Amino acid sequence: MSVSLGEIVDALGGELVGGERGTPISRIAPLDSAGAGDLSFLSNPRYRQQLAASQAACVIVAPAMREEASQRGACIVAADPYAYFARATQWWKARHAGNAPCGIHPSAVVHPSAEIHVSAYVGPLCVVDAGARVGAGSVLKSRVTLGEACEIGERCIVHPGVVIGADGFGFAPSGGQWVKIEQLGRVRIGNDVEIGANTCVDRGALDDTVIEDGVKIDNLVQIAHNVHIGAHTVIAGNTGIAGSARIGAHCSIGGAANILGHLSIADGTVISPTSMVTRSIPKAGFYTGIFPLQENEQWEKNAATFKQLYALRERVKKLEQALADEPRGNNGNR
Amino acid sequence: MSVSLGEIVDALGGELVGGERGTPISRIAPLDSAGAGDLSFLSNPRYRQQLAASQAACVIVAPAMREEASQRGACIVAADPYAYFARATQWWKARHAGNAPCGIHPSAVVHPSAEIHVSAYVGPLCVVDAGARVGAGSVLKSRVTLGEACEIGERCIVHPGVVIGADGFGFAPSGGQWVKIEQLGRVRIGNDVEIGANTCVDRGALDDTVIEDGVKIDNLVQIAHNVHIGAHTVIAGNTGIAGSARIGAHCSIGGAANILGHLSIADGTVISPTSMVTRSIPKAGFYTGIFPLQENEQWEKNAATFKQLYALRERVKKLEQALADEPRGNNGNR
Amino acid sequence: MSVSLGEIVDALGGELVGGERGTPISRIAPLDSAGAGDLSFLSNPRYRQQLAASQAACVIVAPAMREEASQRGACIVAADPYAYFARATQWWKARHAGNAPCGIHPSAVVHPSAEIHVSAYVGPLCVVDAGARVGAGSVLKSRVTLGEACEIGERCIVHPGVVIGADGFGFAPSGGQWVKIEQLGRVRIGNDVEIGANTCVDRGALDDTVIEDGVKIDNLVQIAHNVHIGAHTVIAGNTGIAGSARIGAHCSIGGAANILGHLSIADGTVISPTSMVTRSIPKAGFYTGIFPLQENEQWEKNAATFKQLYALRERVKKLEQALADEPRGNNGNR
Repeated sequence: MSVSLGEIVDALGGELVGGERGTPISRIAPLDSAGAGDLSFLSNPRYRQQLAASQAACVIVAPAMREEASQRGACIVAADPYAYFARATQWWKARHAGNAPCGIHPSAVVHPSAEIHVSAYVGPLCVVDAGARVGAGSVLKSRVTLGEACEIGERCIVHPGVVIGADGFGFAPSGGQWVKIEQLGRVRIGNDVEIGANTCVDRGALDDTVIEDGVKIDNLVQIAHNVHIGAHTVIAGNTGIAGSARIGAHCSIGGAANILGHLSIADGTVISPTSMVTRSIPKAGFYTGIFPLQENEQWEKNAATFKQLYALRERVKKLEQALADEPRGNNGNR
Repeated sequence: MSVSLGEIVDALGGELVGGERGTPISRIAPLDSAGAGDLSFLSNPRYRQQLAASQAACVIVAPAMREEASQRGACIVAADPYAYFARATQWWKARHAGNAPCGIHPSAVVHPSAEIHVSAYVGPLCVVDAGARVGAGSVLKSRVTLGEACEIGERCIVHPGVVIGADGFGFAPSGGQWVKIEQLGRVRIGNDVEIGANTCVDRGALDDTVIEDGVKIDNLVQIAHNVHIGAHTVIAGNTGIAGSARIGAHCSIGGAANILGHLSIADGTVISPTSMVTRSIPKAGFYTGIFPLQENEQWEKNAATFKQLYALRERVKKLEQALADEPRGNNGNR
Repeated sequence: MSVSLGEIVDALGGELVGGERGTPISRIAPLDSAGAGDLSFLSNPRYRQQLAASQAACVIVAPAMREEASQRGACIVAADPYAYFARATQWWKARHAGNAPCGIHPSAVVHPSAEIHVSAYVGPLCVVDAGARVGAGSVLKSRVTLGEACEIGERCIVHPGVVIGADGFGFAPSGGQWVKIEQLGRVRIGNDVEIGANTCVDRGALDDTVIEDGVKIDNLVQIAHNVHIGAHTVIAGNTGIAGSARIGAHCSIGGAANILGHLSIADGTVISPTSMVTRSIPKAGFYTGIFPLQENEQWEKNAATFKQLYALRERVKKLEQALADEPRGNNGNR
């Protein structure tokens, strides 16, 4: 099942240069593996060299690449080729897979008091507890749990295995044992949020856990109780955000990063993958704490030395003092 | 639906000071966000300054805070305000949500040979395999898998998506391939254990994986085969504990920490989040291995230097020797 | 239900030395906890001391241990005792639990267009989407999701909670928001692959995510879109592999390791647990990046020093220069 280049630009805009409207497109493919019937894109100038060699039927390019691309063959010129490509995938999917489903799959277990918008979809083997709400156009794929009184806004996508609204991890020590603090808050999720497979978002202890509009969360992420995530922040897989942390808007949190509880992260902050945030970040910036990888033999020596790093600094300080104290040269003639 | 201060102290003890028994309470709330109808608590002296400013109808405080708190308004004086607060949340939840459910949800798939105590609850879309046992008062929330012959004690709470009793990760190398070692052990979980959403506890290879009484495990934690976790230990989210590790009682393992296999950790040990334990810890203490976060530019320089850290130490050693060898000052007159 | 030593060697080979074929075996057990009716094994010479003391009825040993082991009692001599033990567990399980089930559990939700081989098994509360394929002898345990058009080869084992074929994490920035890139690729999994509980394997963006034959993946692992994992590689729990990374064959990736996107890892590479791979590894080897654990007090000093590590190196450089510039000794007589 193919579409024509003309149909694509009619639907998505952009200018078709050096190609025929009737050219059939059977797939969207990366520049280096695209074949004769494929639509591809060039968004990162780094891959410019792949352009000339590409077999793609048509390539989406930025205005600056117009000449170069049209010498190769057909191209679609668009202000932002990557966003254009993204919209093309959406159009492609809707065209081939039809409209997204709506309604409640018969195998889902939905409490009668839950409110599921008529245009929302609750997939196979989901569980929606009492008083939960799912907004217009939102999709719970298979095997999602949405806990009691938790809310999901409009046009959200929640992938399989996600657990929203399990109890936060709260216990009071008492006589060497732990007394459970019942988690009385909820989870409130805004519009256009996407949550990856097997990710967990815990309900708040007293107040709510809040995820604002447009946040995108990858797989296997842990969002603890009372976390607040600002709008349009992205969080990559395996990341953990501890209780009551407050992440700003438009942040980018790398995979397997960790953020301690009760911290505040400024809007627009970028955290590298596997980095651990132990203090609040009041100033937006690009922060990293990645342990460098080495061949094991090198690592062993360096790691052993690291354990005496403070002592090494003290030794350097002593050397500096010794050199400073010492009369220099011979007979003071320096 | 509100309750009165009098009902609270009648149920939970403590002394009501400077307030009316009939004062209605509509919510339990943190000190800084509590409103006029709310019950709050002060357990950490750090938040003492919030006390005077709090709008709460009543604050749970320690005996030492009795005077200060009663000047502000109503308070409940209790020996351990945090534990009192925890019990208040339990009482509150039972009061408002009614008793915990029991029985087996009709959508759960429970093998006929499994033994579910009459007072236990197996929630929607759970799977309980052959010969598994669930003790009195335990709750399996939605979408929990309890594998063959695995056992859960009394009053446990198992959150959605948890997998207990999947195969441990055991393979023997043979001719460049891997031969599966069937995992013939079980998982045995004590009483009063809580296990967070999407956490996995693997069955033992030959002997069992064991989690003792009162252990609390957060979300997305990996407990490998033949791990033994001592009573009342707490394990925060995203943590991984490798095969046959033996964690003591009353330990506290921070989030995203990792513990290698076949290690022993002493009772009462505290491990900081994201720390990696590569050796046994025979002596209780507070152990940390967190890579410090910096602005990326600083990190790049420091990380590059780290790769030569051992060499740097050798250079310092050489400097020390050079200075020691060198006749000091002029004509030895120092 | 016990078996005899004779039945074991008849089924699995090896030479029974110093024992009776009729000796009953009731369990397979580790050397140090094996009792009078148990079969055990010695594969690692480190545990040689446990051999003499073991109560096991019979011990599987290598040819080199034949004399020593037979002095203690019955032994089975096999070229590779660990692989023999692995096969013994398989034989034991088949003997006691019967053949693996096949067919589709009535509670599973399987799309009519999915192709499930007649000898495969789809367990309770699994979801198999349109056009997905499961090969001969493969087992999807309970609560597995296999997404649209994704494929699993023959003799695979997929543990509970696994999600195969959720959308990869792909968004194009556009005006401060994120535009979803529909994930149009699939997941293709080879033969003899095992995937641990709650692990996620995302579908490709345009091309497919590929897991080759014999790969073994532990629990809670994140495999992002368009990752390619070579044959017979093992990946331990909590690991994250970012988009388009290409892992070679016969690699061993430690638990909670992380591999950045678009990297290539050479065949046969070993990565230590919790290590972060930020660059391609063109040469097979043993690579590590573990932050050393210390008592918290030591760590604080060392971590603080680390933040000035580059500066420390500059100080050492300055000292070296100062010492080099300085006329040595008295009157040049060194």
